[in-house]
Amino acid sequence: MAKPYVIGIDMGGTNTAFGIVDARGNVIASDSIKTGKHSNFDDYVDELHTEISRIIAAADAEGKINGIGIGAPNANYYTGMIADGVNLPWPTPIPLADKISSKFGIPCIVTNDANAAAIGEMTYGAARGMKDFIMITLGTGVGSGIVVNGQMVYGHDGFAGELGHVIMKRNNGRMCGCGRTGCLEAYCSATGVARTASEFLEIRGEESKLRDMPIEDITSKDVFDAAMAGDKLAKEIFDYTGKILGEALADFTAFSAPEAFVIFGGLAKSGDLIMNPIKAGFEKNVLPLWRDKVKIIFSEMKEADAAILGASALGWEVRED
Amino acid sequence: MAKPYVIGIDMGGTNTAFGIVDARGNVIASDSIKTGKHSNFDDYVDELHTEISRIIAAADAEGKINGIGIGAPNANYYTGMIADGVNLPWPTPIPLADKISSKFGIPCIVTNDANAAAIGEMTYGAARGMKDFIMITLGTGVGSGIVVNGQMVYGHDGFAGELGHVIMKRNNGRMCGCGRTGCLEAYCSATGVARTASEFLEIRGEESKLRDMPIEDITSKDVFDAAMAGDKLAKEIFDYTGKILGEALADFTAFSAPEAFVIFGGLAKSGDLIMNPIKAGFEKNVLPLWRDKVKIIFSEMKEADAAILGASALGWEVRED
Repeated sequence: MAKPYVIGIDMGGTNTAFGIVDARGNVIASDSIKTGKHSNFDDYVDELHTEISRIIAAADAEGKINGIGIGAPNANYYTGMIADGVNLPWPTPIPLADKISSKFGIPCIVTNDANAAAIGEMTYGAARGMKDFIMITLGTGVGSGIVVNGQMVYGHDGFAGELGHVIMKRNNGRMCGCGRTGCLEAYCSATGVARTASEFLEIRGEESKLRDMPIEDITSKDVFDAAMAGDKLAKEIFDYTGKILGEALADFTAFSAPEAFVIFGGLAKSGDLIMNPIKAGFEKNVLPLWRDKVKIIFSEMKEADAAILGASALGWEVRED
Repeated sequence: MAKPYVIGIDMGGTNTAFGIVDARGNVIASDSIKTGKHSNFDDYVDELHTEISRIIAAADAEGKINGIGIGAPNANYYTGMIADGVNLPWPTPIPLADKISSKFGIPCIVTNDANAAAIGEMTYGAARGMKDFIMITLGTGVGSGIVVNGQMVYGHDGFAGELGHVIMKRNNGRMCGCGRTGCLEAYCSATGVARTASEFLEIRGEESKLRDMPIEDITSKDVFDAAMAGDKLAKEIFDYTGKILGEALADFTAFSAPEAFVIFGGLAKSGDLIMNPIKAGFEKNVLPLWRDKVKIIFSEMKEADAAILGASALGWEVRED
């Protein structure tokens, strides 16, 4: 029989949040550490072990942890490794699942952060009861977690769901961090919004509150604030961003015909500013059979909770052997 | 216990092929009728019943049929209906599964033709043993059947896998039969090849054997014949077609990270002429982590067999109640 608790760990570039979760999805204890504090990965694991052991003891949960689930950038469900090409302070690949399970003496399953968020949303959030949906995370990058037939899509190699890297502009597209050009992520991430602001301000002549600050300092938050204060150019930057995302979601629909897209992450806080052009871009571009039939909704989870809860759900999947 | 045989029916716009298939995938009897002969759908079902009953009797298989599987254009696995927007001689929607199962007194499951081909390929063809692959059918249109975790992807509504209708050209794209512009199908179907020929011949000045015939009569077969005879422009038409398909497959890889793409249908007969530019376009455009890692292969099945066998496999899925 499964033990009564699981540990969820959300490993980000800056912070690592973790919590003890019960079978009903209550986070009964949680805390966090700085990811980048240790230049050696084993030291990081040691601190994580110390801190998590402390909250386990405080919660009187020793020996009652069924498994540990981790959501981490580029983490692979099949191999348990953090793959290359990720912005972390340690050399990759990193045998994350092995290191954690040996240190803790508890089985561990990992997946990437967007997949963990999707699992959280399916188990506890806006996608409860859905068997086919796609989570789109709009943060520094654009991530995705795809659920088909009630199962996460990991693909042949565990790296499925890189929807931030479909090509939206085949000619003269923006450079992307992946080394190619025109990726969705180069337009619809928080960074993409800032780049759009920079382009718009250079090319166009209109007045804008955004001209009051140095172009290179403008963030997506500045664009949001300006748009909320009625700035027309700032609103157009969101229109441009949302339209491209809506076009992308229309193509994704032709792939897996999801019941819903769940939008998550920093940019999701922009509300209608981003949602209205996403929906307009989607409905204008989707194959007629899906017009007005696919839900596009915001995540119902707090960002921190979603990641911890989503990761923790993997802790119920561990084999009991 | 399951009965020893299933019926597979491949319903095309011109012909309807059908066969009796045993548990090892042997087509023990088969035949076909003209789909368009009857202006009334019930008459078509009557003829199908007469002809299939005849081969069942000849094979001494009365009472031994476990189920009927049908692959048909726009047929929906969940509803059993042929949906609107399809080139058939009868008004749609058509309650295909219900009509067939009542007439035959045998349970019936339907899916669209590309999905049926994918099931056939997975069960008996190039995708044997694969749990994650994508079938691309290049015929009059471009169809697809997607397999994830060993399961067909039907999506929330049963219409998933319309990869012929992702947008490949967002500006000045060709009109597509779906009413939008720039769809993959408008470029990479047999019709798309003919349209490319027409464009190339109008815009460019080079000599070409294709100039010996009226532009509007040129088919993809003519382009193939010219290319095989060394015609440079005809080869470039295949390069253009394959490159666009390769770019599309690169995007699809970011979705489900398949082990392989299986290319099927009329254009697949063009061999290296189409395969080389597909692979070049794919490797140039795919996210670096998948470079040289995804197989792109031709179907190993005869077209007729794939469809009948693929459809027939659904006959094993019927509930025994």
